[in-house]
Amino acid sequence: METKRIAAERAVEYVGDGMVVGLGTGSTAYWAIQKLGARVKEGLRVKAIATSIESEALARELGIPILSFADLAGEIDLTIDGADEVDADNHLIKGGGGALLREKIVAKASRELIVIVDQSKLVDRLGDFPLPVEIVPFGCEMTLRHVSELGCKPVLRTRGDEPFRTDNGNYIADCAFGAIHDPGLLETRLNGIPGVVENGLFVGMSSKVIVGCGNGDVVER
Amino acid sequence: METKRIAAERAVEYVGDGMVVGLGTGSTAYWAIQKLGARVKEGLRVKAIATSIESEALARELGIPILSFADLAGEIDLTIDGADEVDADNHLIKGGGGALLREKIVAKASRELIVIVDQSKLVDRLGDFPLPVEIVPFGCEMTLRHVSELGCKPVLRTRGDEPFRTDNGNYIADCAFGAIHDPGLLETRLNGIPGVVENGLFVGMSSKVIVGCGNGDVVER
Repeated sequence: METKRIAAERAVEYVGDGMVVGLGTGSTAYWAIQKLGARVKEGLRVKAIATSIESEALARELGIPILSFADLAGEIDLTIDGADEVDADNHLIKGGGGALLREKIVAKASRELIVIVDQSKLVDRLGDFPLPVEIVPFGCEMTLRHVSELGCKPVLRTRGDEPFRTDNGNYIADCAFGAIHDPGLLETRLNGIPGVVENGLFVGMSSKVIVGCGNGDVVER
Repeated sequence: METKRIAAERAVEYVGDGMVVGLGTGSTAYWAIQKLGARVKEGLRVKAIATSIESEALARELGIPILSFADLAGEIDLTIDGADEVDADNHLIKGGGGALLREKIVAKASRELIVIVDQSKLVDRLGDFPLPVEIVPFGCEMTLRHVSELGCKPVLRTRGDEPFRTDNGNYIADCAFGAIHDPGLLETRLNGIPGVVENGLFVGMSSKVIVGCGNGDVVER
């Protein structure tokens, strides 16, 4: 956990007074929200938009003021979020935690996206991690067939005996593509399939990646 | 109504024994479902997949056997559906009735899509009809802003004082683009916005358009 934590705490140093901050979801974002809460207690004034019901609850608990999109006048200044894979070009796979759509909406609305990971998430090429694809329940069998035609074996994520449901009420298919040679092209093709709501490829969206290393170093790139 | 009806009835002549048929939604598809019900009563054996709760209820009432996607082994043989606009290349705008996502999923899963319209729906260039875009409620203000950057004024569809909800629980934004010069490009750009689930452009999907004319003629193209 220490490596995630040191990356997360470094990222929170970039939060300035008066900023609107996007809060990610997952075990690394957890540490960023904790640190942001501590800074708010010390007097930092921020407003936050959360990417999941879970992160919003944690932020409220820590006394971080929450803003809804409806109340957002301009852009989000800075979003801090984890990732499941980061390639050499800082393209990402996200969505292991199931919040990819909200994370992508928030990231797209942000001037800056800082990604926080430990070294285990760095890869030469995306695709070892099964790509999460959010799909509409109606006709999901057919949607999965069209997704598989792009070169993967999609597996519907479950929770107990039921399909897992996102905060938006949709399903997640975990799609093992192996090496993804052109993430931008795959993203466009997936989004072109009716029934696909969004996918976990974040291409050209991150402005900085902060890596926590086992020896206690923090590397920014 | 007569022009819609004669187009719809001509389309149902293309339904053969043993086919799996996709049923559209709206005032023209209504007549196709009526006619299909009459042919089923005469002994035609088909199974149908409906694009809305409304069309499914009508089909059941008329004794048309309903198939779910989960029970579908291969493709849908033929789907019959209306449209809000049809251009000279048989590209479409659909979704005035709010069922565009399910209609697109079913159309994409169909070997053939027959579109049934009256003459008033024929246009040189798509875009006079406001393009329906289905969006996720979370962050919809930001999603609408990104949609508007593509060159339109999106209006959130309402029902009474509340936002209209699709069968999938999402919102619809009606987007007046004016003349759409490259429907394929606009479709890709819209689908690339996180928060956009689907849009009402059907580019290269229709295999035949059947037009009911005021003088009683039916034109196929």
